[in-house]
Amino acid sequence: MAEYNLLQKKILADGTIKSGDVLKVDSFLNHQIDVPFISKLGKEFYELFKDRPISKILTIEASGIGIACLTAVHFRVPVLFAKKSAGSNMDKDVYSTEIRSFTHNKVNHVVVSKKYLNAGDHVLIIDDFLANGCAVEGLIDLVHQAGAEVEGVGIAIEKGFQGGGDALRKKGYDVKSLAIIEKMDAASGTIVFR
Amino acid sequence: MAEYNLLQKKILADGTIKSGDVLKVDSFLNHQIDVPFISKLGKEFYELFKDRPISKILTIEASGIGIACLTAVHFRVPVLFAKKSAGSNMDKDVYSTEIRSFTHNKVNHVVVSKKYLNAGDHVLIIDDFLANGCAVEGLIDLVHQAGAEVEGVGIAIEKGFQGGGDALRKKGYDVKSLAIIEKMDAASGTIVFR
Repeated sequence: MAEYNLLQKKILADGTIKSGDVLKVDSFLNHQIDVPFISKLGKEFYELFKDRPISKILTIEASGIGIACLTAVHFRVPVLFAKKSAGSNMDKDVYSTEIRSFTHNKVNHVVVSKKYLNAGDHVLIIDDFLANGCAVEGLIDLVHQAGAEVEGVGIAIEKGFQGGGDALRKKGYDVKSLAIIEKMDAASGTIVFR
Repeated sequence: MAEYNLLQKKILADGTIKSGDVLKVDSFLNHQIDVPFISKLGKEFYELFKDRPISKILTIEASGIGIACLTAVHFRVPVLFAKKSAGSNMDKDVYSTEIRSFTHNKVNHVVVSKKYLNAGDHVLIIDDFLANGCAVEGLIDLVHQAGAEVEGVGIAIEKGFQGGGDALRKKGYDVKSLAIIEKMDAASGTIVFR
């Protein structure tokens, strides 16, 4: 009989599967944020990456910000979140990249200010979901533009069957996901974890 | 000689004033997030509102999420963040309101799922900025649609000279801002706090 970890148990208890391989976890992760619970996940990321010299956590708005902040509390480092559009108050001096969102079926032009990502930075990328890996690839591109180092990638829920995480691992990135879904089925409501 | 509090000191040290009454604090509040520092502001909100029976913190994406989560850590309650557009994964069953953004010169259609805001909720609204008050008015509207109670409004930086905070106070809301700017001047770089 399988033993489930903290996040796997929460997904089984509170997640719902929708058609089109959609896992809804907006009761605790990406709309409502169960802060005491997500803080525990932040502690897990700390345990997984604490031996790395992390100087900054990078994520992308909006749903990565909560889990990134609740992880940064343990590392005592700043969070930098990439913005999906340059507001009128945004610096013009930015690193930028294009990220395709399959969920919203569009390409986002994503930016970070050059001021806050530097050659000396050792970056931990944190995000709530990883599926095809486009968001993480974009964030890695921003880190490389700055001449900084990607120390690791911490993901809450990876859709293993979409292959983005394994492609990153093959490239040599240290991708650690707290729950990797190998299979899910909307009709029966079943989830199989790796 | 004026005594400055924690956030006022930080604004004087790291904020920059741009023309058009723009205060840039993206080094610590709304692009890069100085998590150890913002956690201290979260503790200040806790001290200000701890006698209220807060069951949930409500904010709006994207820049409110970090400070809301770092406040919720102290209250040990969930954060709910209002979304500026309904993604394809979003419930159709939402409370919605319109919020004008003067910074981005557009009207955002803002939603929260009805599942996560209920008649029994006692809500603390948290946001990074308050100027004309449109965002907070919109969040209050969402709380009222749910039949829930607004226990208070905690703001990091209020632009007092734009009047939105005082208008809310006149309506009876308990608005507490950690720094209220009465005057600022781009040419001389000076800021006067209330």
